[in-house]
Amino acid sequence: MSRLSFNQITSGHASLADAVNACVKRDVEWIAPWRHKLSAKPAEDARLIREAGLKISSLCRGGMFPAATAEQRSERIDDNRRAIEEAATLGAQVLVLVCGPAPDRDLDGARHMVEDAVAVLAPVARAAGVHLGIEPLHPMFAATRSVVATLEQSLKMAERFGSEIGVVIDAYHVWWDPKLYALIERASGNILGFHVSDWIPLLADPLMSRGMMGEGSIELRRIRAAVDLAGYTGPIEVEIFNEALWRKPVEETVRLCAARFEEHVV
Amino acid sequence: MSRLSFNQITSGHASLADAVNACVKRDVEWIAPWRHKLSAKPAEDARLIREAGLKISSLCRGGMFPAATAEQRSERIDDNRRAIEEAATLGAQVLVLVCGPAPDRDLDGARHMVEDAVAVLAPVARAAGVHLGIEPLHPMFAATRSVVATLEQSLKMAERFGSEIGVVIDAYHVWWDPKLYALIERASGNILGFHVSDWIPLLADPLMSRGMMGEGSIELRRIRAAVDLAGYTGPIEVEIFNEALWRKPVEETVRLCAARFEEHVV
Repeated sequence: MSRLSFNQITSGHASLADAVNACVKRDVEWIAPWRHKLSAKPAEDARLIREAGLKISSLCRGGMFPAATAEQRSERIDDNRRAIEEAATLGAQVLVLVCGPAPDRDLDGARHMVEDAVAVLAPVARAAGVHLGIEPLHPMFAATRSVVATLEQSLKMAERFGSEIGVVIDAYHVWWDPKLYALIERASGNILGFHVSDWIPLLADPLMSRGMMGEGSIELRRIRAAVDLAGYTGPIEVEIFNEALWRKPVEETVRLCAARFEEHVV
Repeated sequence: MSRLSFNQITSGHASLADAVNACVKRDVEWIAPWRHKLSAKPAEDARLIREAGLKISSLCRGGMFPAATAEQRSERIDDNRRAIEEAATLGAQVLVLVCGPAPDRDLDGARHMVEDAVAVLAPVARAAGVHLGIEPLHPMFAATRSVVATLEQSLKMAERFGSEIGVVIDAYHVWWDPKLYALIERASGNILGFHVSDWIPLLADPLMSRGMMGEGSIELRRIRAAVDLAGYTGPIEVEIFNEALWRKPVEETVRLCAARFEEHVV
């Protein structure tokens, strides 16, 4: 249980302070805050988390690189510079990157924009002592959230860089991949984070259709064991986008995450 | 336009006779019937289609192989033997395979069941003069419709067999794949069919969320050109699952398919 991290989006309506308190009450040692939940003074957020005795598994999120014009792309990169600063201020080792959709039908063009942006940000991250974790998203989100759609693709990008760039493996996004276990093995040394939830039937909003571990189709324990074997021994984030879960009190949600984590993941 | 084929599911409420008549009126030369729309006497369906002057691009569909027990798997294979017979009776060169979901969380086990079933059916298909087209489905359907989720995976299966087994490429299912164009090139000689529609925002039922060509995110003309280059010169099926489209008169739907096909595909 010492590896369980509560990703804050799992209680999307709770404040950072409420999420932190719920983790403390339920003996969860790690938390992954989201940028839009931070205050205007990340140093104070950092103190709040540190004084509660919690560690930070990652900051969510940077990315969203492709855009129609060079000026817009430059603005996106500037926003990611700020995200790297915030991660450094918080003491977060990892900034998760959700790379963004294409501005038009040209997926390959958008993928080059992602690669160009990561190349610009790599030395910035290294100087700040922050790692950038490229997270492949489920191909269902290729049109709306990320042109990086497979673990193989994110690994190829990460392998071009040093240790400042790696991948984040979210079981929800990659569970369907016929090459999953070979790719996890190949990712050894490049895994910056591991997220769990479960695949349930899609709801009205596919983004909000994740299930609690054990409710769905994903062979979570096998994937977790493969990630372990690949040498990743860090925190495991529970990250569940689900409106019904958001309506529960955050302490109840944290309790449920911990119970299901023990039952279906570790 | 001589390559346009009207996949019957694009007007899901129309009878085979109505779909055939609509194709004739709109000068569409090919049709892809679905098994559940056939009569009890496929020979009569064959005559209906032939006498209307239409050719058949494929029969939809066989597959659905994985099941919890050996008895159930054997029943699925028997159903596919019947589908092969129906295809032969219709004069359809290709039976499309939607391979089916796993009966539990063991995706790899289900994938082996698919491979075993295809190995049993390959000689049956060869003897009947029917080709089996393994269609990878979008990973969004991995839990509900097919454990075959990528073109690479379906190609690896097809490459183990002779010309009686190949792949069917549906742009909706594969457009997001970072390796798409390399895989289409590799598929040269193994492509048994090519389907088009478009990716639009997901609706309440993801299965019924396909758009008309030009409405969505898919770079259709580029994919079509790549399939051409790989040597596939056969019919191109328009296959759109969409309830709003189903409510239109079939002749109107065929007209719309032909117009958008010309505008966005060829």
